[in-house]
Amino acid sequence: MRKGLFFIAAGMSALLVSGVSAESKAEKSIEYRQGVYRVIGWNFGMMGGMVKGEVPYDKEVFAKRAANVATMAPMVLEGFGPGTNKGAKTEAKPEIWAHMDDFKSKLSKMNDEATKLAAISKTGSFDEIKKQFGATGASCKACHDEYKMK
Amino acid sequence: MRKGLFFIAAGMSALLVSGVSAESKAEKSIEYRQGVYRVIGWNFGMMGGMVKGEVPYDKEVFAKRAANVATMAPMVLEGFGPGTNKGAKTEAKPEIWAHMDDFKSKLSKMNDEATKLAAISKTGSFDEIKKQFGATGASCKACHDEYKMK
Repeated sequence: MRKGLFFIAAGMSALLVSGVSAESKAEKSIEYRQGVYRVIGWNFGMMGGMVKGEVPYDKEVFAKRAANVATMAPMVLEGFGPGTNKGAKTEAKPEIWAHMDDFKSKLSKMNDEATKLAAISKTGSFDEIKKQFGATGASCKACHDEYKMK
Repeated sequence: MRKGLFFIAAGMSALLVSGVSAESKAEKSIEYRQGVYRVIGWNFGMMGGMVKGEVPYDKEVFAKRAANVATMAPMVLEGFGPGTNKGAKTEAKPEIWAHMDDFKSKLSKMNDEATKLAAISKTGSFDEIKKQFGATGASCKACHDEYKMK
């Protein structure tokens, strides 16, 4: 196996050569991506509390959470490397790997919306922010509807 | 309960008013912090592969991972809010809450080292980077030794 191959799946590279079993490698990737999703979900949920009026809107806190989501969004894809399509604990449908281009496209859309949300959170009105929060949530949902187990 | 109280534990605020049970709230916080740690650990492990020579050193990739860790580091503390000191799945020792100032101080040290690593990864020599990687790892370990269950 040539060294260059290690970089095809960047997320797996260090694990591939460190004597970890294939199953364990995949489990680690799955745990990684679930970690990314948890951090995104946590921050998104906190923003949602403000959007829904359950907690008072705080512009600075909201903007910080939006920035966190925009920072995390590009980290998702790395967790979907080769061999990570099965696992006891994953909620990712196998369709992801069968339609990787569409999955990537949906992720890219989510990235764009999250980036817009982070920007508008700093400068926009609460109405503008709520609208973009909705668009970002819709971009998450588009992927979940298609590719996440119920 | 006064509204102002919600902000004492920022991480719990939205959950506190959303009708989620106390146990479930704590579980969500624990899952959040474990998510943050997983993403840090993932990126740190990938850097470790390069430091140990298991995978070829790539300056750009290393710097990106160091930036990820530095970005995630300040997110840890939010996961240790009130009521999150017990849970079936947590590896956090109760001593954290008994010695919160020391825990925060160790977290702060880790933040500083991770920030330095992110900076030096962009401009430093590989030897300098390896040295700072070691210092960052030591700052993680200092907390794990004291406050993480074996």
